[in-house]
Amino acid sequence: MSKMPTKGLFISLEGGEGSGKSTQIKRLKSWLEALLPNREIITTREPGGTPSAEDIRALLVTGEVDSLTAKTEALLMLASRGEHVERLIVPKLADGAIILCDRFADSSYVYQSITGGYTETELRQLHHLTIGDIAPDKSFLMDLSPEEGLARAGERESQLEARFELKGLAYHQKVREGYLRIAHQEDERFDIIDASQSEDTIFETLKAVISDLLGKRGIC
Amino acid sequence: MSKMPTKGLFISLEGGEGSGKSTQIKRLKSWLEALLPNREIITTREPGGTPSAEDIRALLVTGEVDSLTAKTEALLMLASRGEHVERLIVPKLADGAIILCDRFADSSYVYQSITGGYTETELRQLHHLTIGDIAPDKSFLMDLSPEEGLARAGERESQLEARFELKGLAYHQKVREGYLRIAHQEDERFDIIDASQSEDTIFETLKAVISDLLGKRGIC
Repeated sequence: MSKMPTKGLFISLEGGEGSGKSTQIKRLKSWLEALLPNREIITTREPGGTPSAEDIRALLVTGEVDSLTAKTEALLMLASRGEHVERLIVPKLADGAIILCDRFADSSYVYQSITGGYTETELRQLHHLTIGDIAPDKSFLMDLSPEEGLARAGERESQLEARFELKGLAYHQKVREGYLRIAHQEDERFDIIDASQSEDTIFETLKAVISDLLGKRGIC
Repeated sequence: MSKMPTKGLFISLEGGEGSGKSTQIKRLKSWLEALLPNREIITTREPGGTPSAEDIRALLVTGEVDSLTAKTEALLMLASRGEHVERLIVPKLADGAIILCDRFADSSYVYQSITGGYTETELRQLHHLTIGDIAPDKSFLMDLSPEEGLARAGERESQLEARFELKGLAYHQKVREGYLRIAHQEDERFDIIDASQSEDTIFETLKAVISDLLGKRGIC
């Protein structure tokens, strides 16, 4: 649960490559726009989400793998997140928007602590200094075996994915384990979704959880 | 004094715009190259100093003033510094190089705490997490009144300076006070130089201090 008072709703989708986050975010956006015609429904992504944060993203996804030190990569992610939170997420939530975000801080705790620059504890300290207690109201972990995720991601072309693919299967296994560990630690905020299910089945599950949350918040 | 064992020597020049840092660094480099022909003499600058760190610098110095939040600006500075330390300063010091650096962490403590994203204490925490105890062996504060500094800087054309100039005199007065406070806190590491003196007088003072340090370290 977010620690700040909010009139909107902040939802993140987390998970490895090819786990279907962006597909579900698109479908949820259409559904929410029809359901709540008077509310702003925002889809966004990390790293990125504002013009400056996208500039920082460009530094992260271009160039050679390992052209940046692990700590620098983590700091650039955090810099991008700071922009995103301060300039988009916080003001839009205050206006009552529903925000669907493709990755948030949990991704950093998973990926950046694997790459070895900072420990997870240090990453949490850095985040606390930068974004305080801001957290999604609800996070969905799209859980998928690395084999299936990589097979799906291989059909795509984004630079970020291309970089991640180069890391190999053992790496992606660590990513999966990292996400599951974090999701179990915060099991009130997280719902773990079996992402090997059909798109439609997953969509129905996400809708049910979000509908429940909208009701509890008095949004609809 | 640097906390890490080092075979080289790490010297930083700090101070506001137009205080003559880069001029003195050039002269010191020529002098040291003649004095120590078998040692690498490196001049470098922050933000920047390595290819990736220069890419990050480009994000900081292009675009509109205030296009980045204060925290993001501080994190980008830190990301650039992390690269610089890990990829250049630490390995080159281990090889015995003499490094002359135009600005280092002290500049962040001064500038970034004025802009108000993080407190100075938070900035020091962020630095400790990122670069540990790495600090210059000797730092020179080129102290100059903001009026004189701005008059000198106004004759130049760098983008970074152009951005800083837009901040006005009261801002630069705070910068000067910030530097003086830090220099007094660490008065063993810092030498405060009256930068209104002639170039030649300042150069003689810097040479005398560095000669003494080279002798104490057994370098020459």
